[in-house]
Amino acid sequence: MGAAPEARAKSKAGNGGDMAAKTYDVVGIGNAIVDIIARCDEGFLTKHDLVKGSMRLVDAEEANRVYAAMGPAVERSGGSVANAIAGLASFGAKCGFIGRVAADQFGGIFRHDIRSLGVAYDTLPASDEAPTARCLILVTPDGERTMNTFLGASVDFTPGDLDLAMIGAAKVVYLEGYLFDRDDAKAAFREAASAAKAAGAKVALSLSDAFCVDRHRDDFRALVRDGADIVFANEKEITTLYRVNSFEEAARAALEDCEMAVLTRSEAGSVIVAGGESLEIEADQVARVVDLTGAGDLYSAGFLYGVTQGAPLAACGRLGSLAAAEVIGHIGARPEISLRALARERGLIA
Amino acid sequence: MGAAPEARAKSKAGNGGDMAAKTYDVVGIGNAIVDIIARCDEGFLTKHDLVKGSMRLVDAEEANRVYAAMGPAVERSGGSVANAIAGLASFGAKCGFIGRVAADQFGGIFRHDIRSLGVAYDTLPASDEAPTARCLILVTPDGERTMNTFLGASVDFTPGDLDLAMIGAAKVVYLEGYLFDRDDAKAAFREAASAAKAAGAKVALSLSDAFCVDRHRDDFRALVRDGADIVFANEKEITTLYRVNSFEEAARAALEDCEMAVLTRSEAGSVIVAGGESLEIEADQVARVVDLTGAGDLYSAGFLYGVTQGAPLAACGRLGSLAAAEVIGHIGARPEISLRALARERGLIA
Repeated sequence: MGAAPEARAKSKAGNGGDMAAKTYDVVGIGNAIVDIIARCDEGFLTKHDLVKGSMRLVDAEEANRVYAAMGPAVERSGGSVANAIAGLASFGAKCGFIGRVAADQFGGIFRHDIRSLGVAYDTLPASDEAPTARCLILVTPDGERTMNTFLGASVDFTPGDLDLAMIGAAKVVYLEGYLFDRDDAKAAFREAASAAKAAGAKVALSLSDAFCVDRHRDDFRALVRDGADIVFANEKEITTLYRVNSFEEAARAALEDCEMAVLTRSEAGSVIVAGGESLEIEADQVARVVDLTGAGDLYSAGFLYGVTQGAPLAACGRLGSLAAAEVIGHIGARPEISLRALARERGLIA
Repeated sequence: MGAAPEARAKSKAGNGGDMAAKTYDVVGIGNAIVDIIARCDEGFLTKHDLVKGSMRLVDAEEANRVYAAMGPAVERSGGSVANAIAGLASFGAKCGFIGRVAADQFGGIFRHDIRSLGVAYDTLPASDEAPTARCLILVTPDGERTMNTFLGASVDFTPGDLDLAMIGAAKVVYLEGYLFDRDDAKAAFREAASAAKAAGAKVALSLSDAFCVDRHRDDFRALVRDGADIVFANEKEITTLYRVNSFEEAARAALEDCEMAVLTRSEAGSVIVAGGESLEIEADQVARVVDLTGAGDLYSAGFLYGVTQGAPLAACGRLGSLAAAEVIGHIGARPEISLRALARERGLIA
């Protein structure tokens, strides 16, 4: 590890506006989704032509078909950036979320859960017939998750849904790559990034999914190069973005291309690439991996919590590893215990 | 332990109709509910005047008030007898369920989950405005659960909802005491018990909750004495039923009053009272009690599975202990692993 990334992170924290006066540590913009989680065996994935570990978008009919074939499920609030915001709130960060549900029971679950964490969430429910987005998550015995997302009311997300005052009041605005899958949402996404920059907020971006990156590579490349201060990606996503075959090649490309890239590698830990240097962070040990859903989202939560507290990059990474380890130890993509208490116990925060 | 209860169970199994020709091992009749489960501290119960370990009925307004105050939750299918039916299906029993949901998203969850277990479930959704019943469950750090039930569409349950053909095709019909809280449902309950008797099915009854027993003591007393072949109750319920102060007094009263009473005592195990004799069964050891929701329901599942397979009473009790131990080790009132596999592993079934 070199000293450069640390120095750089600190100098960045001092840029663009009066950070101390910001109301929110992090404001997230993403899909507002309820997860429907069931265990399955490997044969189920084969039978239904599902690619393990990926996310695919499905229409209502296909969602119903997969649901009918699934075993008994558990329902929990989800959504990639929304999970990260829940994690940040669990660390004690002040957060807001922007994302659209419908005025239905699943929308009620989503709204209740995020607000009960003290997160500001005021996006108006969609007015048309589309139900709240749901994600059918199949968890195989190895803990890997395979996702089938019906975007429903999330599709309605447009620039008009952006709360520019909330965005302007954030230290960090965290954008979900999955939003790139719809044109109106993509437009909202770009407007949010501009508004964040103008208000002196850092822009963080999650690449979300390798297939999503593949569908929108040019747009992601432009945003990674010019719009985002911090890019989160896993190994598949970053190699897909740069069309390379190895993690090492991708990390080198990111080093030249991004302000800061945070690359997660499951049990191999993570690599923070910034200011011409790379910093390796170990993964936390987990007694039993139950469900990998939310691992990347919660890593981001821990990392961004560190960033908002002005922590050194190595500490940001360790907070990410801690939060990811908590969430993969149980079913569901949101923390079940206080991450603040856990981080204190480990001596990572005061 | 005496030999009498064993002999009695075997002789009863041969009574009333051709058991081998029955389509269903057990048909359950109960409230069709989705559980909304959140952790809370003891102070939350005090603040909201909730009696730990009890179930209270709430209207929509009070349900909304409690929900707004609760932390982030997990949603899972529930309902006392429905949980038992899910447990029976997990043992490999052929089951049916009768209970009413609404045509809403929570109703969809309930229907999906029970059908995905192979359980026959054909009750038509309620046609009025009442939503599917929900139970707000608060789990304190000791694992105890405190329940707030909004009955919603379950209120609609009337004798017209009974599927008499399904009832007639069951070896055992399992009735939920909670249904006694509504007059129409109580009428349906009595009709179901008569139809079951007429078809040669055993009638099993859960007393459900001490407050429920207190509200309807006379009706329960009559049914326990004359209508039910097997009565399930915990310590509080059976002492409330007989208005006595100790478990021992209640067990003596049950001995004189019931065909068969199965009395559960949490970590102290259970006592089966039948044919003038009592048989004590140990509770299974649990590494960590996470959530007591469903413990009684799953004990019934194991016990009734044993009954339908013609097992000796001691084996029925051990199957009950096994299923109860599984369900209290995680959040939610339905098994997360195959109870059939678990029972085989322990050598309780072939």
